[in-house]
Amino acid sequence: MNETLQQTSPFLRACRGLTTDYTPIWLMRQAGRYMPEYRAIRAQHSMLEVIGTPELAAEVTLQPINAFGLDAAIIFSDILPPLIGMGFHLEFAKGEGPVIYNPITSPADVAVLRTPSAAENMGATLAAIRLVTAELTPRNIPLIGFAGAPFTLASYAVEGGGSKTYSKTKALMYTAPEAWDQLMRKLVIVQAEYLRQQVVAGATALQLFDSWAGLALGVQDYVRYVQPYNTMLFAELADLGVPVINFSGGTAVYFPEVVACGGDVIGIDWRLPLDVAWEMAGIDKPAQGNLDPVALLTEWPTLRERVDDVLVRAAKVRAAGGAPHIFNLGHGILPNTPVDNVRRLVEYVHEATAR
Amino acid sequence: MNETLQQTSPFLRACRGLTTDYTPIWLMRQAGRYMPEYRAIRAQHSMLEVIGTPELAAEVTLQPINAFGLDAAIIFSDILPPLIGMGFHLEFAKGEGPVIYNPITSPADVAVLRTPSAAENMGATLAAIRLVTAELTPRNIPLIGFAGAPFTLASYAVEGGGSKTYSKTKALMYTAPEAWDQLMRKLVIVQAEYLRQQVVAGATALQLFDSWAGLALGVQDYVRYVQPYNTMLFAELADLGVPVINFSGGTAVYFPEVVACGGDVIGIDWRLPLDVAWEMAGIDKPAQGNLDPVALLTEWPTLRERVDDVLVRAAKVRAAGGAPHIFNLGHGILPNTPVDNVRRLVEYVHEATAR
Repeated sequence: MNETLQQTSPFLRACRGLTTDYTPIWLMRQAGRYMPEYRAIRAQHSMLEVIGTPELAAEVTLQPINAFGLDAAIIFSDILPPLIGMGFHLEFAKGEGPVIYNPITSPADVAVLRTPSAAENMGATLAAIRLVTAELTPRNIPLIGFAGAPFTLASYAVEGGGSKTYSKTKALMYTAPEAWDQLMRKLVIVQAEYLRQQVVAGATALQLFDSWAGLALGVQDYVRYVQPYNTMLFAELADLGVPVINFSGGTAVYFPEVVACGGDVIGIDWRLPLDVAWEMAGIDKPAQGNLDPVALLTEWPTLRERVDDVLVRAAKVRAAGGAPHIFNLGHGILPNTPVDNVRRLVEYVHEATAR
Repeated sequence: MNETLQQTSPFLRACRGLTTDYTPIWLMRQAGRYMPEYRAIRAQHSMLEVIGTPELAAEVTLQPINAFGLDAAIIFSDILPPLIGMGFHLEFAKGEGPVIYNPITSPADVAVLRTPSAAENMGATLAAIRLVTAELTPRNIPLIGFAGAPFTLASYAVEGGGSKTYSKTKALMYTAPEAWDQLMRKLVIVQAEYLRQQVVAGATALQLFDSWAGLALGVQDYVRYVQPYNTMLFAELADLGVPVINFSGGTAVYFPEVVACGGDVIGIDWRLPLDVAWEMAGIDKPAQGNLDPVALLTEWPTLRERVDDVLVRAAKVRAAGGAPHIFNLGHGILPNTPVDNVRRLVEYVHEATAR
């Protein structure tokens, strides 16, 4: 991996706990529907076409980098496509979100799932990473690779799409614990190799998304049915030489158990103030977050007040001996976010934190 | 209110912290689609027809009471109908859940909302309560009245239905705090009077449902935009002479703030074990909950293991000087729940806790 980038990128330095001239910022789902450039591409191509065409995925990845002074890019993809090569028929239905037409309904469905290599399964994304890093490395901007955590992927594979109750997923884990174990282990294998290949292709950081674990599970179920697999997966990534961000949603109530899974940087959703989360989990790692994405729908005075709150809390942690802060949202950017608010946010975080 | 019922009903005794011969049990959404008798009625009548026809609402309320040995009935209705008289056009669309065709989109929409009396707005439900209590009081079974908490109702009124991000609701509270205050105060007025009239009609306990607050809001927003109104509402109910249950979902991470709002009994969702919640919030009130509704989809050995876990934790709290336990789910019963599991659950809780 690129030595100069490691030394000079504020984002990568902060990930390793080193000092930076200002607080680095990137935004989850920064390449997305709120940008007119993105909507123009999506008017011509489906979600899976953009992800499956390296040139398009690279172009979309670069759109927010060229529009705003962000400190890191994240490869344009989605958490779900790795399921396709495992045997799932996935589609992004218009206005309905992702649909899986052949969800898991029995242990036998788990037994037949394949564990394809990333080259076979996600070759277009790996190619897009090579295109993007060829462009960004000379500009001294790192690229984040990512994948969905096993539980979040399993929930889509069992429910056949989004869910409010996760009842099928939980019924499978409760009634067929061996099939659940097999499913989670297959996902660990597929995702570990996929993340590893993203680094080989040029990604200089990784993020694991466990977006739904905390909305679906209480602490006892998390510890029994999720934590062991996330721990395995982080262990598989430990020798890659790039920082790994451990992001999860809705897990604030058992945050120490989430942090214990691993990762070099802890992503914090918007439900818990940074300093409270930090103290609760006794975090000794850099923290990333955690502006509520809804704040970006408001006028600048309200938005700035909320950004200041995040910055003040991060400074408080730092003053108390805590590690550096990477500014981000607590969840993905909303499609109806005004572009000007994003521009202003990025500039403001840099200015307000310049040391 | 009926003195004999107050003295002899295990549910009402537990609500007041008194000893009982066994742990009382009722189930959120116990009258619902999992029962063939219920589906037979709904095949002939829409949701709003059943709610709006006292005889039908009473019949549906009594179905689970006649099928199982439950310790309390809850009047059949929904949290949303009180919005109709305030000026909202509400429909329960087939397979899509509730839809509000004229959601709030500006402060002006809040200003024109009415605050009708319960007699005018929810007369059919009040009449159903009179029918049900005439039947149940001689059988020594109490009836629970209920209403949605202001935030949960406001979220539907602003989003126009269910939501995953609550972004419109939060944008309103952030950008128009005065309109938010006006909306929440109007909801407090309407709901306080509605709950009061339910007691006048015969309800011998009340439950306030803040089902979505914890999924939508972080602790800072909860304290600023929700807690004051829930506190007002509980204060309005304090002189009614019936126990009030404070139930909320997804609020485990700021449970002390939720408990501080008021109520005589604390409802605990399935995300946090009973004893952990109890300790976290320093609860000195009876607690209700908190079996994960998904457990009812499993076979009896798995289900019993999970029921035992709840009972053991409740006993632990009791042994440590805590107040009595009312068995319930941590959220509403799921439509695909086997009826036999419900029967077995009710019997088992009574047998296992017989003192």
